[in-house]
Amino acid sequence: MNDVHRQSASLEERVIALCRAARDAAPALAGASTETKNAALRAGAAALRRRAADLLAANAGDVAKAKTAGESPAFVDRLTLTPARIEAMAYGLEQVAALPDPVGETISEWTRPNGLRIAQVRVPLGVIGIIYESRPNVTADAAALCLKSGNAVILRGGKEAFGTSALIAEILRDAIGELPSGAIAFVDSIDREAVRILLRQAELIDVIIPRGGEELIRAVTAGSRIPVIQHFSGICHVYVDRAADLAIAERICMNAKVERPGVCNAMENLLVHREVAARFLPAIAASLGAAGVELRGCAETRRLVPSARPATDADWDTEYLDLILAVKVVDSLADAIAFIRRHGSGLADAIVTTDEAAATRFTYEIDSAAVFVNASTRFTDGFEFGFGAEIGISTNRLHARGPMGLRELTTYKYVVRGNGQVRT
Amino acid sequence: MNDVHRQSASLEERVIALCRAARDAAPALAGASTETKNAALRAGAAALRRRAADLLAANAGDVAKAKTAGESPAFVDRLTLTPARIEAMAYGLEQVAALPDPVGETISEWTRPNGLRIAQVRVPLGVIGIIYESRPNVTADAAALCLKSGNAVILRGGKEAFGTSALIAEILRDAIGELPSGAIAFVDSIDREAVRILLRQAELIDVIIPRGGEELIRAVTAGSRIPVIQHFSGICHVYVDRAADLAIAERICMNAKVERPGVCNAMENLLVHREVAARFLPAIAASLGAAGVELRGCAETRRLVPSARPATDADWDTEYLDLILAVKVVDSLADAIAFIRRHGSGLADAIVTTDEAAATRFTYEIDSAAVFVNASTRFTDGFEFGFGAEIGISTNRLHARGPMGLRELTTYKYVVRGNGQVRT
Repeated sequence: MNDVHRQSASLEERVIALCRAARDAAPALAGASTETKNAALRAGAAALRRRAADLLAANAGDVAKAKTAGESPAFVDRLTLTPARIEAMAYGLEQVAALPDPVGETISEWTRPNGLRIAQVRVPLGVIGIIYESRPNVTADAAALCLKSGNAVILRGGKEAFGTSALIAEILRDAIGELPSGAIAFVDSIDREAVRILLRQAELIDVIIPRGGEELIRAVTAGSRIPVIQHFSGICHVYVDRAADLAIAERICMNAKVERPGVCNAMENLLVHREVAARFLPAIAASLGAAGVELRGCAETRRLVPSARPATDADWDTEYLDLILAVKVVDSLADAIAFIRRHGSGLADAIVTTDEAAATRFTYEIDSAAVFVNASTRFTDGFEFGFGAEIGISTNRLHARGPMGLRELTTYKYVVRGNGQVRT
Repeated sequence: MNDVHRQSASLEERVIALCRAARDAAPALAGASTETKNAALRAGAAALRRRAADLLAANAGDVAKAKTAGESPAFVDRLTLTPARIEAMAYGLEQVAALPDPVGETISEWTRPNGLRIAQVRVPLGVIGIIYESRPNVTADAAALCLKSGNAVILRGGKEAFGTSALIAEILRDAIGELPSGAIAFVDSIDREAVRILLRQAELIDVIIPRGGEELIRAVTAGSRIPVIQHFSGICHVYVDRAADLAIAERICMNAKVERPGVCNAMENLLVHREVAARFLPAIAASLGAAGVELRGCAETRRLVPSARPATDADWDTEYLDLILAVKVVDSLADAIAFIRRHGSGLADAIVTTDEAAATRFTYEIDSAAVFVNASTRFTDGFEFGFGAEIGISTNRLHARGPMGLRELTTYKYVVRGNGQVRT
């Protein structure tokens, strides 16, 4: 008991020391020039390439353990590094170096009647904790985005990739030159207690970004005293209006469901206006069927598409992440909006219509992070939005909403200049 | 025991019903036109004036109870309504009606190479919970700001002002015309358990804003599953640089310390560069002393101002909120910055200098919500910043930082318009 106690105290001390070093590094990161940060990123890329053999060796150890533990082939694949994947990580660092630096940007400025000049200036958040699963590339990716946005980062990767992730973090930390090494911290313990300790350091960490499945995010949120940027499920809708261009509707539905069904911005529910259902549904059902999609429909859908299985109430609220689609015929735009408000997850929803009034009403009344008119929900993505990077997609309403790039890793301060003004 | 259980279940049901009504009201609020919201605010103002006698009667009951309970005269004063204070509340509602509506503002927009047009559009947060102390005016003030920004609000006021606050909320709710009455909810129980129930409704409430002292904010934060916008202590500094205009320095220091010492943006620590200490400190000490300020100084300060008491280590970290000032002589700008980083609370800090390089360095290296050059820290305020209103001052780094007006009660969504684009 005493031994356990001692060990646990020492883990806590180590984790807190790491957090404190990151906190101490934050001002130097915040003050670092764009050139210094870019040089560190490019040096990191070069170091990853130079040490590719060491990375492959460390990764082989992780992969062997994962296979012995009976992990699934998909899991082992995500865990595995190859020379091409190492090159992709290195290239990713160089791409982040090439992005504009958000820090120091003047968001807005104005002058008060008393002559005070007020500027709202973008500054880093400070210290960011990233808790992620066993994907080694997240280590490089997250570290690069935090560094470029002037933040210190504390990385806590999944235990199955521990050897690989620890080495990636070490290589990057060794490469950052004049910046303090505390800027890229890696929690060197696979003990879950380390996460619990991390999540209590509200004085030392400004925000936690979990990257992984819903279970991870719920566990992190439940245990955290620090604000958590959440990414919960995406139950995305496409609504095919009575004034839809049905060729466009078919293209968008196929893309939103089939191109990559396992992601949060894929369509899960299809709504079709009654007036076009007879023309649209049999055709799209044939195309979706040919692509291997199972349809679960309302009564009217099943009348038009007899091969569809009946949808249960649960189907409208399910994120399949698979080649399954729930389909419902609705009587009006208003019904579609009401349905999406009730069953949508607020991530991304689309209308297909040539009716500008219907489109505008949809964009006003659907309060999702991204609302699309005549475009696929699959565009809900930092790269597709033109951010040049993505640290995640937020389903929070506070701070950042939807795809998060470098700007979303910043906050602001007000710089107020006067010539002796006092308040009366 | 069974009775207690039943009662507590029924309180929970009542509080949840209130939250659910607010959540159900949120879409109508979000979609309400500026004119509808302004009409509701003006109707609320008229109703407060019309029912002034009822308000005074309800308030007399609260005041009598507070006096019987032995509350301090300052407490009773804050609790007391007068015809002038009712008029001020009504006028406040009209002022909020006159402010620009933040909802629907296009924050930025751009077109992607594939032709997608992306607009980032300001939308309400949704449902805001306000937990406050026994100041009846907060009821009207907070309800008005939430309504104007398109949010439903759930108000939970201090128990000593319960009768007054409940009536204000009822009057406003009755006045909002076509908007759903759930938009202005008031928790009609003085039981503290009601707050605990409220703070668990993460599915129904988007953000909690506590308005009151540090104890209230800490209690709310500790118990909340909902994001809390915090307003913690203000340990504000004024640094008088070696290149300061000493007349300006004196004016700013007097203002920052004396004009209203009991507020978060008042100066608590004064730093003076060694090169100007002998010229500046005896003079400012005399002025501050004449204003009743007690000085607590470092050794060098006490050499120059023998009447100053010795400062202890604790003094540098204390928010006095009183006519007390800690004074330290520093050797350099760098020392001043290091001192502020260590002891400041990150709310507001000022430099007085004519040296542009020193000013710029200070604004870069001091990471406080508001950084002032040649102006008083007392300007850290939503009205002084020109926001036209203030729901509070945030010491969080996420979402909103510093003074919060109507915009800070909003989030955004992306509206993406295409002509059939799909992702490949």
